[in-house]
Amino acid sequence: MSDPQTSGYSPPETPATRTRFDLPDGVIYLDGNSLGPLPVGVADRVARTLTAEWGGQLIRGWNSAGWMVQPRRVGDRIARLIGAEPGSVVMGDTLSIKVYQAVAAALAMRPDRRVILSDSGNFPTDLYMVEGLIETLGQGHTLRVVEPEAVADAITDEVAVLMLTQVDYRSGRLHDMAALTAKAHAHGVVTVWDLAHSAGALPVDLAGARADFAVGCTYKYLNGGPGAPAFIYVAPRHADSARPALSGWMGHAAPFAFDPAYRPGEGVERMRVGTPPVIALAALEAALDVWDGVDMAQIRRDSMALCDLFISLVEARCPTLTLASPRDGSQRGSQVSFRHPQGYAVMQALIDRGVIGDFRAPDVLRFGFTPLYIGAADVRRAVDILQQVIDGALWDRPDYHKKAIVT
Amino acid sequence: MSDPQTSGYSPPETPATRTRFDLPDGVIYLDGNSLGPLPVGVADRVARTLTAEWGGQLIRGWNSAGWMVQPRRVGDRIARLIGAEPGSVVMGDTLSIKVYQAVAAALAMRPDRRVILSDSGNFPTDLYMVEGLIETLGQGHTLRVVEPEAVADAITDEVAVLMLTQVDYRSGRLHDMAALTAKAHAHGVVTVWDLAHSAGALPVDLAGARADFAVGCTYKYLNGGPGAPAFIYVAPRHADSARPALSGWMGHAAPFAFDPAYRPGEGVERMRVGTPPVIALAALEAALDVWDGVDMAQIRRDSMALCDLFISLVEARCPTLTLASPRDGSQRGSQVSFRHPQGYAVMQALIDRGVIGDFRAPDVLRFGFTPLYIGAADVRRAVDILQQVIDGALWDRPDYHKKAIVT
Repeated sequence: MSDPQTSGYSPPETPATRTRFDLPDGVIYLDGNSLGPLPVGVADRVARTLTAEWGGQLIRGWNSAGWMVQPRRVGDRIARLIGAEPGSVVMGDTLSIKVYQAVAAALAMRPDRRVILSDSGNFPTDLYMVEGLIETLGQGHTLRVVEPEAVADAITDEVAVLMLTQVDYRSGRLHDMAALTAKAHAHGVVTVWDLAHSAGALPVDLAGARADFAVGCTYKYLNGGPGAPAFIYVAPRHADSARPALSGWMGHAAPFAFDPAYRPGEGVERMRVGTPPVIALAALEAALDVWDGVDMAQIRRDSMALCDLFISLVEARCPTLTLASPRDGSQRGSQVSFRHPQGYAVMQALIDRGVIGDFRAPDVLRFGFTPLYIGAADVRRAVDILQQVIDGALWDRPDYHKKAIVT
Repeated sequence: MSDPQTSGYSPPETPATRTRFDLPDGVIYLDGNSLGPLPVGVADRVARTLTAEWGGQLIRGWNSAGWMVQPRRVGDRIARLIGAEPGSVVMGDTLSIKVYQAVAAALAMRPDRRVILSDSGNFPTDLYMVEGLIETLGQGHTLRVVEPEAVADAITDEVAVLMLTQVDYRSGRLHDMAALTAKAHAHGVVTVWDLAHSAGALPVDLAGARADFAVGCTYKYLNGGPGAPAFIYVAPRHADSARPALSGWMGHAAPFAFDPAYRPGEGVERMRVGTPPVIALAALEAALDVWDGVDMAQIRRDSMALCDLFISLVEARCPTLTLASPRDGSQRGSQVSFRHPQGYAVMQALIDRGVIGDFRAPDVLRFGFTPLYIGAADVRRAVDILQQVIDGALWDRPDYHKKAIVT
């Protein structure tokens, strides 16, 4: 069949890098934006960490297996994928915790301002963490949440911190990091970028944009596994003065001196908090091997073409679905969302038929396109199945309406 | 040989439960107080989580593999070991983060008081996290650190929160949780107990002591692996009013409603923060199987006897070492510390000979005794080797003085 897309570029039918993943047979996995699949090599690496390192070296593993330097070593590998300077990224905790740290540090840089600006497309936990921080600070800070399109105009001299998720988790809408950061700086505003749906999805240039702080998770496009550790970036120009509000012993200048008083470590090291999650970091470290020799510009090109193809096919063949993502690929991350009044049940019917996306309340079907393992053939097959589900009202089954804990 | 101990009770030469651990040949592992060894079954369970759950079920694992309820399910298994009510313990983050949450929640219960009382035997990260919290609060709170013996007298109506680690990480000195909690309550003080060196080491009765909050790590006596997740306990009488200062989406009343505003979840669920560390929790869950059928009172009896035996043998045969732990077993956790001017080098020499303990600056040799896998034969053999090292000055080698990153 001929594709109705107009772009001249055709993405691979089946990407060569698919063999770097252990994907189940018969599954078209369009949810790597929520949880990336298992990369080949992760299970072996974790097994080695468990048996040879933990089991065999016991406590000595902290030195002999390099566990203590792992958060920085892995951070440097992620730095390369997000345009961060070497030594500016460290791993640990969850994204929520890292948001708290970054915003607390950013606010401390603007003690005379009281507004944190964000948008309604931000992921809720970022907003929740800031709510909690504001209450703890007790200084009358305000979290001002505007529509994504209104962010640029809302950047004023009153704002202390601009906290945005670059790619909207529902719609995939992409913020212009460089432009918003420049405008923020022109008004003396400190920026905190959440890269949850950017890292590994598209080229990011933190250094080039002069971003101040950034955070992200590693279980989506970085394929680190369920609940994989988060990362935090601190611009080198701030790293030796940033205040680590969550001042744990691993961020101390000399953790094993057991000083009674806290002294922050050098640079981004101070953003470490507790004992590093060694086993999870081993899984992540192995997962990052899938990026060897991968060109992020090519990933972006394929991702945009796959998304364009999906949009054009769905709109041609499933007119009851309404596009809920920007049509212009340059304004979008690596996912496409459609609305359907029975979105939840439609997604269950798709999953039952091997097309795995996810659902976000109230009516959004999300489909992530990750060119490392998704090709044009997958897109066409997914739309075939989607059309069968819609045309045959195959979603209209009681069990497809029963909500699970995680939707 | 005859043992110089006076107690009538003899612990097992080799514990029956040793077979529940994968211990390297030729090693006497006396550092389970820092990092517990690998239990049998953990590697298989983690492999299954990686391949069958993550690899095979992908995003569906959150429901089908029970990942989302894992933090409470594992919490309930730990609750049984620390005398906590079912449903009062939840897993996640690191001990440092959980200290911050617990102290912040406790302080919010005493808004008119400004003193946090702790002792100099507390683990530094607990003090550091409170320093950071005080700075974030900016309300002039004071962290008052007294000697362990002075804690009881320092509990006054001025104190908001009493934060103590029950077992001193250096000396093993054991606080009387019930007595100090009762005295604290008589003065309107809220208690936060750190059980890092208690959970799995000795019987703990949080409910019986009417403790308010407790936190702990799971990589020591609970054998969950390097960097295993922490736990937090909130007394059921506080759980529905406690303020979760780190208010992440997993602690929200309805995480998948994606509300713009935070509403705390029911009970201890509100102390969850970010996405749970599924792989690490799987390791921990399998590790907890070693406690099946184990009587904590018997563990305590064996632990005290092993420690007594070690102390009596060392004092008889290595007089240059000075006991740095309470002599009375009822005042001690499950470890014994000795001082030696060349403690660091002595420990390196011991480790080189298969006796693995650890060192805490400036001169403390720590030895943990975990009756699940250490028996009287190990104690005698360890002391034989210690005596050889001391008598032959075998520690006097340049490489034994070279400090590693982790000491």
